[in-house]
Amino acid sequence: MNTFAPPVQRLITELSKLPGIGSRTAQRLAFHVLRSTREDALALAEAIREVKERIGFCEVCFNLADEPRCRICTDQRRDPGIICVVEEPADVIPIERTHEYRGVYHVLGGALSPIDGVDPEDLRIEELYARVSAGGAQIREVVLATNPTTTGEATALHIAQGLRQRVAELNVTRLASGLPVGADLEYADEVTLGKALAGRHAL
Amino acid sequence: MNTFAPPVQRLITELSKLPGIGSRTAQRLAFHVLRSTREDALALAEAIREVKERIGFCEVCFNLADEPRCRICTDQRRDPGIICVVEEPADVIPIERTHEYRGVYHVLGGALSPIDGVDPEDLRIEELYARVSAGGAQIREVVLATNPTTTGEATALHIAQGLRQRVAELNVTRLASGLPVGADLEYADEVTLGKALAGRHAL
Repeated sequence: MNTFAPPVQRLITELSKLPGIGSRTAQRLAFHVLRSTREDALALAEAIREVKERIGFCEVCFNLADEPRCRICTDQRRDPGIICVVEEPADVIPIERTHEYRGVYHVLGGALSPIDGVDPEDLRIEELYARVSAGGAQIREVVLATNPTTTGEATALHIAQGLRQRVAELNVTRLASGLPVGADLEYADEVTLGKALAGRHAL
Repeated sequence: MNTFAPPVQRLITELSKLPGIGSRTAQRLAFHVLRSTREDALALAEAIREVKERIGFCEVCFNLADEPRCRICTDQRRDPGIICVVEEPADVIPIERTHEYRGVYHVLGGALSPIDGVDPEDLRIEELYARVSAGGAQIREVVLATNPTTTGEATALHIAQGLRQRVAELNVTRLASGLPVGADLEYADEVTLGKALAGRHAL
């Protein structure tokens, strides 16, 4: 369709590159930007620009940070003796949302996947080993919170092995797999239900 | 939640101002921007900026345009004798998509709604009258394609009346209301079905 002026078409194209935004939604968003005030539109453009200029990785845990160290690593109330290992910065959010975890994080930057060309040296695995070794007896536990997927499980196993080779007395744990709270047995898939059975505990 | 660095929080806030984007989706989009290359992110920021800098209204029909006149008004193959009146620039797209219409447009910039403080002088209604009067006998038909809603109907009636007072011999038409193609009678609402009955025609 040639009814859009080139700048409008360009905005639609850029918007439809976002995940979950199809061409119709991109059109709707573009018309919203056109209708909104100049200030609102430029605030969005500026926020995108600023996030790319100012956000980098925390030098300790590789979470997103606008300082050399992130807000969790610099928070005195967090327990540096427990390190929770996650795949992506976005994975920190749901764990924080539980309010159950007061330790610190280590963000790998992905999961091992030889098929996609992601090898151990592409992730922050050596940095984790170095961090745990340097911490010595101060570090009591490493929680492997990679996703419960094939690649996430493989990554967790790989790291657990590596940690045990390097540090003798370290508690390496993995997030529990099982039925989600509020789920219905009838609709549970067999793998999840199998995990729930295998992980059953005394009441 | 205070785990986001301020630039990230700012981007999430700006993204969640977009229509249909809740805070979770905004978070997902923000993390996508953070993960994407610098070039991709800045292209989006630039597209937003450019659209606000370069897009204005067509001096004839008030559609969006990056020149004084829009691409439809300057297209020699379009018939300037038929003017289709729509509420918003976004309404031009679905009509163009039908490939049934080869006339030109007039974009009102909204619909009459005294409750929301939208009076005739807030819309491009006088400009439509002036355009039709100036066109004289050249203009054969005005199609009122405002939305089939209370405000859209009121706007269409108001304009039809105004046009008839000013120009004697003018064909003023309204889009047909009725059952959408592919619909099921069983699930049709009574207002739509009433319109479909009232508008029945010989086969």
